[in-house]
Amino acid sequence: MSVPTCELCNATGGTLLWQNDLCRVVSVEDGDYPGFIRVIATRHVREMTDLTEAERNALMGAVFAVEAAMRETMQPDKMNLASLGNMTPHVHWHVIPRFRDDRHFPGPVWSEPKREAVIPAERVERARRLALALPARLGTGRP
Amino acid sequence: MSVPTCELCNATGGTLLWQNDLCRVVSVEDGDYPGFIRVIATRHVREMTDLTEAERNALMGAVFAVEAAMRETMQPDKMNLASLGNMTPHVHWHVIPRFRDDRHFPGPVWSEPKREAVIPAERVERARRLALALPARLGTGRP
Repeated sequence: MSVPTCELCNATGGTLLWQNDLCRVVSVEDGDYPGFIRVIATRHVREMTDLTEAERNALMGAVFAVEAAMRETMQPDKMNLASLGNMTPHVHWHVIPRFRDDRHFPGPVWSEPKREAVIPAERVERARRLALALPARLGTGRP
Repeated sequence: MSVPTCELCNATGGTLLWQNDLCRVVSVEDGDYPGFIRVIATRHVREMTDLTEAERNALMGAVFAVEAAMRETMQPDKMNLASLGNMTPHVHWHVIPRFRDDRHFPGPVWSEPKREAVIPAERVERARRLALALPARLGTGRP
């Protein structure tokens, strides 16, 4: 089902890195958070429990595959995972590598900023490598 | 493994509603968010991908069982799920029923408040019923 007014039914929601029938994995262009990835359900469902159990497990499998690749490539101080969707109620997971020196740490990325972040060039390079590594980690799919 | 300095190794982290060997389910006393539940890993692991796949699936099974019960009982406008742990790096999931009139909607609960929330008495009552319903929904376990 596709909903005409839904942003995630009508746009990719980031730079497409991988997709299968169930979901797509996109990189989010956020200057404060290189390596920020979203895993977005293909069909329009509001909540995880609107998916079948098999779909839910497969979607979480993709989220955790992204987490594993992100930890290896980016070596964050902490992983953050969240499915919120208050503004865009179409299931999508935020998968965010967090660092002690990032803009909001130890707050969530949605909290008041703690500092102006200066992103090390190496972190941007690691994010680039993550984007390149993800398709192989996620297995067959397009692209 | 238990870590002496870890808040979630040393305290329940809320009112205990259910537990098994893998995890416990607690209600969070937050006046703005009746029905706020946390699912907390028993052993000290920083990230979901530090668990085995079987543990991860079982833990998410508990999270989604809580979500299902919460949707039925509380009928929220949106479910929010998050595993952050920047301040307490011991795996725990926030499972939060969100309502259009709550303190931060449509922002995450960690964002700047949008309003002073007035919690309907019925919502508090539904949260009470959720806490009572969860043990049966989660199956065998203590208490």
